[in-house]
Amino acid sequence: MRGKLYGIGVGPGDPELLTIKAIKTIKDCHVIAVPSAQNNDRAAFYVVEEYLENKPLISCLFSMEKDEEKRKELRIKVADDICSLLEEGKSVGFITLGDPSIYSTYMYVHKIALKRGFETEIIPGITSFTAVAALLNDSLCEGDEILHIIPASHHEDIEELLELQGNKIIMKSGKSLNKVLEILDKKGLSHKTKIVERCGMEGQRVFNNIEEFEKAEGVGYFTIAIVKE
Amino acid sequence: MRGKLYGIGVGPGDPELLTIKAIKTIKDCHVIAVPSAQNNDRAAFYVVEEYLENKPLISCLFSMEKDEEKRKELRIKVADDICSLLEEGKSVGFITLGDPSIYSTYMYVHKIALKRGFETEIIPGITSFTAVAALLNDSLCEGDEILHIIPASHHEDIEELLELQGNKIIMKSGKSLNKVLEILDKKGLSHKTKIVERCGMEGQRVFNNIEEFEKAEGVGYFTIAIVKE
Repeated sequence: MRGKLYGIGVGPGDPELLTIKAIKTIKDCHVIAVPSAQNNDRAAFYVVEEYLENKPLISCLFSMEKDEEKRKELRIKVADDICSLLEEGKSVGFITLGDPSIYSTYMYVHKIALKRGFETEIIPGITSFTAVAALLNDSLCEGDEILHIIPASHHEDIEELLELQGNKIIMKSGKSLNKVLEILDKKGLSHKTKIVERCGMEGQRVFNNIEEFEKAEGVGYFTIAIVKE
Repeated sequence: MRGKLYGIGVGPGDPELLTIKAIKTIKDCHVIAVPSAQNNDRAAFYVVEEYLENKPLISCLFSMEKDEEKRKELRIKVADDICSLLEEGKSVGFITLGDPSIYSTYMYVHKIALKRGFETEIIPGITSFTAVAALLNDSLCEGDEILHIIPASHHEDIEELLELQGNKIIMKSGKSLNKVLEILDKKGLSHKTKIVERCGMEGQRVFNNIEEFEKAEGVGYFTIAIVKE
């Protein structure tokens, strides 16, 4: 019998934000697939480390390069490795930060495995943005408010997007975030913008407006901005 | 010493989707506040039932009536009851379906308690929409895709909102959903729309397009529609 692939959301970084179902699934899988990338510190691994019990791991290297071909190549390599294990009858749990349905690299592997006829299941996780809201002790949307989740990398029409009625979450920030913050600042929204780096992880930082953020140094990949009307 | 108020997200309905932190917080609180409403079956209560261990409960009745004054009155009554307990030095865990930061009634109580100078903390939960994505075995957003979360009750400009570029989640559905689905159907989006009722709860139903949904009967409050481009 062929094995099944599980995409397991492990939440934003705090091991206490793992669900019972994620822990059970990790314990039940034969092999755990751990994503890593050139600029990434295997954050998902540290979240689940205490539940791994010497289980076999497979390291999944993804590329952060701009070259789409190179990125695709590595994704197929990862999917091939995982599908070989599934073919051998092993169940594979692919751990991913946050929730697998929200901007996760896991979905590339999921879709390839589905296409090849393997069974797959998604285990939801706490998304980074609700963890950020919890940290800020505030809501994201109430009553009739609309909430827009916008990748900072969405360049072409970012100005238009930032003008939409409703609250906004700027995701997957990295370098593109600076451009978004510049626009928000020009619009006079500095004090309606809060920025959180590495929420729930070591080195967590909160910036209560754009000025505070600009004074800080070395802001990295796991950064989210929330703009409330 | 005054007690602390915790807003605890208990996820969409499946007890296995509780986080370790939610369970710990429930166990540590002196009193658990359980929301209920006229049309509501205390869904949050059933999710955490096995962890309550004869802990004192306080029932929080919210109104679903259209009259804003009556709704406000009941919210203040709930906040008064909870603040009395906090004043006595008791810690109160207010359980809420999904995540407290996403359209939860809890936030009314949270804000009143904050205003009165009490300490509050939010424990994030699995949001209903990522649980729906997991059930549908699909992502909500990938790469540069935008995701809009829109309350079905957002009447005035709903046509415009449904035309935004990006994927859409229609939340808090109930009766207003029918109008939204009518518009989506007219736009030829029936087969890009999936609808899930009572995700992870008893009586869960999945509709793979708008026609399927229209043939069904007695669709209730916990219904979410996802429209993918």
